[in-house]
Amino acid sequence: MDALLTPAPAAPDPAEPLVDTRPTLRVQRLGMAHPGDLSELAALLDAGALRAADIVAVIGKTEGNGGVNDFTRGYFTQTLMALLAERTGRPAATLLRELPCILSGGTEGVLSPHYVVFARSGRPDASGHEATGPGALGIGTAVSAPLAAQHVGRWAHVRSVADAVRAAMRDAGIARTEDVAFVQVKCPCVTAARAQAAAAAGHTVLTADANRSMATARAAGAFGVAIALGELPDDAGLEAAMLSDFSRFSARASVSSGVEVEANEVIVLGHSPRWQGDLRMGCAPMRDALDLGAVAQALRPLGLTAEPQLSEADAARVAAVFVKCEPDRRGRVRGARHTMLDDTDINAQRHIRGAVGGLVAGVLGDGRIFVSGGAEHQGPDGGGLVAVIARGMT
Amino acid sequence: MDALLTPAPAAPDPAEPLVDTRPTLRVQRLGMAHPGDLSELAALLDAGALRAADIVAVIGKTEGNGGVNDFTRGYFTQTLMALLAERTGRPAATLLRELPCILSGGTEGVLSPHYVVFARSGRPDASGHEATGPGALGIGTAVSAPLAAQHVGRWAHVRSVADAVRAAMRDAGIARTEDVAFVQVKCPCVTAARAQAAAAAGHTVLTADANRSMATARAAGAFGVAIALGELPDDAGLEAAMLSDFSRFSARASVSSGVEVEANEVIVLGHSPRWQGDLRMGCAPMRDALDLGAVAQALRPLGLTAEPQLSEADAARVAAVFVKCEPDRRGRVRGARHTMLDDTDINAQRHIRGAVGGLVAGVLGDGRIFVSGGAEHQGPDGGGLVAVIARGMT
Amino acid sequence: MDALLTPAPAAPDPAEPLVDTRPTLRVQRLGMAHPGDLSELAALLDAGALRAADIVAVIGKTEGNGGVNDFTRGYFTQTLMALLAERTGRPAATLLRELPCILSGGTEGVLSPHYVVFARSGRPDASGHEATGPGALGIGTAVSAPLAAQHVGRWAHVRSVADAVRAAMRDAGIARTEDVAFVQVKCPCVTAARAQAAAAAGHTVLTADANRSMATARAAGAFGVAIALGELPDDAGLEAAMLSDFSRFSARASVSSGVEVEANEVIVLGHSPRWQGDLRMGCAPMRDALDLGAVAQALRPLGLTAEPQLSEADAARVAAVFVKCEPDRRGRVRGARHTMLDDTDINAQRHIRGAVGGLVAGVLGDGRIFVSGGAEHQGPDGGGLVAVIARGMT
Amino acid sequence: MDALLTPAPAAPDPAEPLVDTRPTLRVQRLGMAHPGDLSELAALLDAGALRAADIVAVIGKTEGNGGVNDFTRGYFTQTLMALLAERTGRPAATLLRELPCILSGGTEGVLSPHYVVFARSGRPDASGHEATGPGALGIGTAVSAPLAAQHVGRWAHVRSVADAVRAAMRDAGIARTEDVAFVQVKCPCVTAARAQAAAAAGHTVLTADANRSMATARAAGAFGVAIALGELPDDAGLEAAMLSDFSRFSARASVSSGVEVEANEVIVLGHSPRWQGDLRMGCAPMRDALDLGAVAQALRPLGLTAEPQLSEADAARVAAVFVKCEPDRRGRVRGARHTMLDDTDINAQRHIRGAVGGLVAGVLGDGRIFVSGGAEHQGPDGGGLVAVIARGMT
Repeated sequence: MDALLTPAPAAPDPAEPLVDTRPTLRVQRLGMAHPGDLSELAALLDAGALRAADIVAVIGKTEGNGGVNDFTRGYFTQTLMALLAERTGRPAATLLRELPCILSGGTEGVLSPHYVVFARSGRPDASGHEATGPGALGIGTAVSAPLAAQHVGRWAHVRSVADAVRAAMRDAGIARTEDVAFVQVKCPCVTAARAQAAAAAGHTVLTADANRSMATARAAGAFGVAIALGELPDDAGLEAAMLSDFSRFSARASVSSGVEVEANEVIVLGHSPRWQGDLRMGCAPMRDALDLGAVAQALRPLGLTAEPQLSEADAARVAAVFVKCEPDRRGRVRGARHTMLDDTDINAQRHIRGAVGGLVAGVLGDGRIFVSGGAEHQGPDGGGLVAVIARGMT
Repeated sequence: MDALLTPAPAAPDPAEPLVDTRPTLRVQRLGMAHPGDLSELAALLDAGALRAADIVAVIGKTEGNGGVNDFTRGYFTQTLMALLAERTGRPAATLLRELPCILSGGTEGVLSPHYVVFARSGRPDASGHEATGPGALGIGTAVSAPLAAQHVGRWAHVRSVADAVRAAMRDAGIARTEDVAFVQVKCPCVTAARAQAAAAAGHTVLTADANRSMATARAAGAFGVAIALGELPDDAGLEAAMLSDFSRFSARASVSSGVEVEANEVIVLGHSPRWQGDLRMGCAPMRDALDLGAVAQALRPLGLTAEPQLSEADAARVAAVFVKCEPDRRGRVRGARHTMLDDTDINAQRHIRGAVGGLVAGVLGDGRIFVSGGAEHQGPDGGGLVAVIARGMT
Repeated sequence: MDALLTPAPAAPDPAEPLVDTRPTLRVQRLGMAHPGDLSELAALLDAGALRAADIVAVIGKTEGNGGVNDFTRGYFTQTLMALLAERTGRPAATLLRELPCILSGGTEGVLSPHYVVFARSGRPDASGHEATGPGALGIGTAVSAPLAAQHVGRWAHVRSVADAVRAAMRDAGIARTEDVAFVQVKCPCVTAARAQAAAAAGHTVLTADANRSMATARAAGAFGVAIALGELPDDAGLEAAMLSDFSRFSARASVSSGVEVEANEVIVLGHSPRWQGDLRMGCAPMRDALDLGAVAQALRPLGLTAEPQLSEADAARVAAVFVKCEPDRRGRVRGARHTMLDDTDINAQRHIRGAVGGLVAGVLGDGRIFVSGGAEHQGPDGGGLVAVIARGMT
Repeated sequence: MDALLTPAPAAPDPAEPLVDTRPTLRVQRLGMAHPGDLSELAALLDAGALRAADIVAVIGKTEGNGGVNDFTRGYFTQTLMALLAERTGRPAATLLRELPCILSGGTEGVLSPHYVVFARSGRPDASGHEATGPGALGIGTAVSAPLAAQHVGRWAHVRSVADAVRAAMRDAGIARTEDVAFVQVKCPCVTAARAQAAAAAGHTVLTADANRSMATARAAGAFGVAIALGELPDDAGLEAAMLSDFSRFSARASVSSGVEVEANEVIVLGHSPRWQGDLRMGCAPMRDALDLGAVAQALRPLGLTAEPQLSEADAARVAAVFVKCEPDRRGRVRGARHTMLDDTDINAQRHIRGAVGGLVAGVLGDGRIFVSGGAEHQGPDGGGLVAVIARGMT
């Protein structure tokens, strides 16, 4: 990777092949023994196989319950930031603000705790060398300005996310919205403390209920992505559709919300001629929790065919998988009653992650899948979406 | 169906086509609004679409937790027996002893509460008319003599189950073990009260721990089926292999155990020329919790192909699906760590039912699947088996 | 008990002591091995120790989770009604409508599954013999007309409950509101089906969300009791205080709500000179979940002192205990943060029942306590109330 | 506090009052907003109210589930050690080995997440100044040599703990076993990895099952304390009584076990004339989960009387409370059936902590109580023990 960073010679000999200076995206899917175990990443850094300074984002699945009292996310994040602070010499608090680390708790059923590290060997240069051909998968990130509590879940929130998505696209060197494959967003929500501060300043929050606020934030995040990608118009009149008209959605947005952030964190993944490498990404909407065909659809552009399951060789080409899903609000899946929403013992999100996780893992033959609930306006109502990164594409 | 029960005329006119007097199996998959809701069955009985006296077995999935304190099974059984007692005029207590009603609690994820009613229009007659051709799917049931507590989980238990399987095969008119498609067994286990009674009589039970005893009973049930079907030899030396050598298993046994029975209840399903109708059954072992290929294998002999999911027309041909599965004892599925066995919040069996249920439901496009945990010696270690009944076969 | 029912001789000899014909209340606290086990009641009926026709109400604690998917209540109720139908010759469906059977699921911690059977030897006669002196604890029940879905949780609901409480007071022969010791109410709530029917008829329901609707129904029930007992004025303007101003409450109401009823069921317990016997009842509000003093306060009028725990002899005098409680909405108990409302693994009502159950059971030295959550407007905000019936009072 | 550490003058003027150079124990009970929140301790250190170097032990209650997958303990420990490393300049890894940090996860019901910090102003000097009078509560800690996996749960383990208790007594300057008030121990258990290593070296572990191994380790810890305190003889023949004869127990031991330690960590609290200050400690065995009287018994020597609850003034004198308890193995509490051991939804330890926590908190009027399950041989069978530290004793 370091070789790629070597500047091209000032006056290249036209007879020699041009050195390709475009950046490469690295995607490492690593396992963990517990939420505080970053040893696999530490080993890669120790071995020089990865440079801490190249890491731009982490998306992971920890083994908590995925709810308000899931502290595996905080534990992992604290451990990650301490490791990167040690290796980069930058303060952990700064890294925490700048480096998107988006975690989903809950490894129900066959899901396996793991995290995906995104590193890039440089930034795509708009004025630089542009190879012909389709390019490769690249990444860009952005963090918005802190969002005031009274804006959470409202149109100002939608626009804040849309702006951050556009900034992340620029960071990724992706000009066309159709080249964006997948957008991962983390949005702030209203906490009791933030609601009180807003009230003291004369503002009104949409809701002070934490769980409800998280849902409104996810909806705003999804609408923000949809606007930035041209899937929905930037029409403030659509605010009434949020958490109401579920036929409006982004087919490429995966949004989470948490009390621990005050700004919107955005990761854009997409294809661009300004990147090189063998990574590509596919994404498909899931129409419901049984939409096995959506997995096949996401795999198809990657040259991967599950008949019915990926071969071992093809499974080895898969670098990362991301899924959004939800228990159908209407209490039925394809006409058959489900019991997820009425179970006092197991949270509905844990139910749906386990079921859709089993389905997607069955196609891929691998339980290392990021599956996240809370899919409001992220894919079709009662469904969600599935995205896959594969290597070995040329 | 009644017409089939009319005795053939004493001296048939050879010019007339022979009436086919072989019995037919009826398989009805019905939904329920709650564990005490048998209204769909009552409606069928009311409409004369089904005769209460023809019902020989019920296998169902109720929406409890599947554990010791799952009372949805008792609730459903009480309601069923009261309904059938009313309609047949036979005492509920008698029906309870004679009619296998095998329930698995827990409809995690996309699984839908439902029950499968097996009814037959008569018994296959060994001396009667035998059509040429392959015949059809038939059913037989048997209930063993009560099993003394000191025998539970031991070789005497194995033999008791094996004898009951053979009796159920005779009841089904199935002569060849290779024609048996699937055997569902419910075994008694040791309770504290039964352990004390055994001790008072000078006997020793294998274990007085209820959960452990259920596991030993399931193992004995699986070995019993395996012996009856010729999958294992009737060698008492194999007793040491129970719950120890998991390479020994039946590929067609699904066994549960419960405190509510004192005898082994057996349901045999298989193909025989002594049955008519359009039902057939396929069964395949699952090598692990990600074995999507096993579902395809079970569907193949039924002329059903999932590419990757059954078409709506083909899904309509599916009459019932039965799955056995378990969280891998070794803590990994295809090399990736799973967390099912270490989760203090969600029972491991609930985890695995949700995941494998999602996988199988994804292939079939339907959540009405009987998925049961506790798969010791029922299919490969860490896996289990999947069985499908389809109609429309001729 | 039968002797008490013998009519007094037409012309009593003034020299003979007058036979006391006032009715007696019997309170039987019985255990169960599982939610379908009514064997202790059946044994009492078999032995003639209790007459099925005398039973007027049952309040019980079953071992489910207390949530929407707790079917132990339905299982117990079905078993009870079948038993009483068999013993009284009246249809189970009729008994179900007329006999209040109010169950709370969830026996967390030291709580023990049990049920309290209320039987009376006759009805108090307004025109009959009235002994001087304080009388004894008596009971009255009432079932309102079915409540239309659009009224649930509104002032019409409040008035419907208030009327039913007054009817139950008359049934109990209790004239003065201050003689009412405790009122147990079960209210209908809105279900999806009832909401649709109301909408089709041009009506609007307060909320179609089942859990929210149950809360509004409990609030209406508590306000209804408060109005009937003179704790609050019958002022429709108070409708806005429901689920909003928690300083308004009844100190003697215990209300539950369920999808299974369409009318308000009311049980009134109170003291009256028209009853004889040695039963008395005490009731005290709990100011928070740590209010141990409230238990002492409820015991005091019964001549019971816990120093710090009831003696065995005194504990034997306790016939039944009823507790209402709730996790403090504000997230703190006496200034210390609690985690009940943020626990994704255990429902908050299960948390609080276990904790308050442990506290009250500790004072009484007995886990057979009816503890129910959902205490909106039933006792002080964040607290609830505790009521005790004792025998041996003369 | 520093002044106390000033050495006494070599030749004190007999006319001047002697400076009391004996060390003081400080006990700080602090709250936390989440398991990674040590801000209250940091504030005390910032303000100079506490010196990081004086801290010798921490015992805390975090809000996880208390089971194998409770990572709140690891998160808290990592955060604590990072804070103390920063403030003392010593490596976190060293502190982790030397400073006992014993956590119990699970704040069920009214229990409040908190931690107790033990700091001492110096060490008691055996040769130094000895004031007359009763002295005060002091502390000593010890960490044994690492325990080989094959010894876990066996007599060698018992002796290792006993030796560590004696070392901690010496560290505390407590000579007489009757002056020891309470001993908190954390023992290593066998993990799969340690079992394999032991097997490779030709050794046999008692059990490789993690949960079972933790129970054997707690039993060994309890026996070790009992031997060191003279409650049981050091007789290897007693090994058979471990987890078998529950009439053998220590009335002052609280033991936990965890995969994260390889050596036994011991904290001894007791009274000694070599300590000064106003802290005292009481401890009483609980005979069962309803033993309210035990709390009164533990409070009595502290001059605290609950009638029935501590007054606010007296509650303010309580510095820390520690409770051990367990769900009765026999399925009943004072004759009434409990359901803790049969609940597939809620772990039995969570049940019992919530119930006993509610009882003890009710007496104290405060939910900041350390309640831990797994009380094998720690107090009477089916019960446990309760210990209280109070200030304001002179």
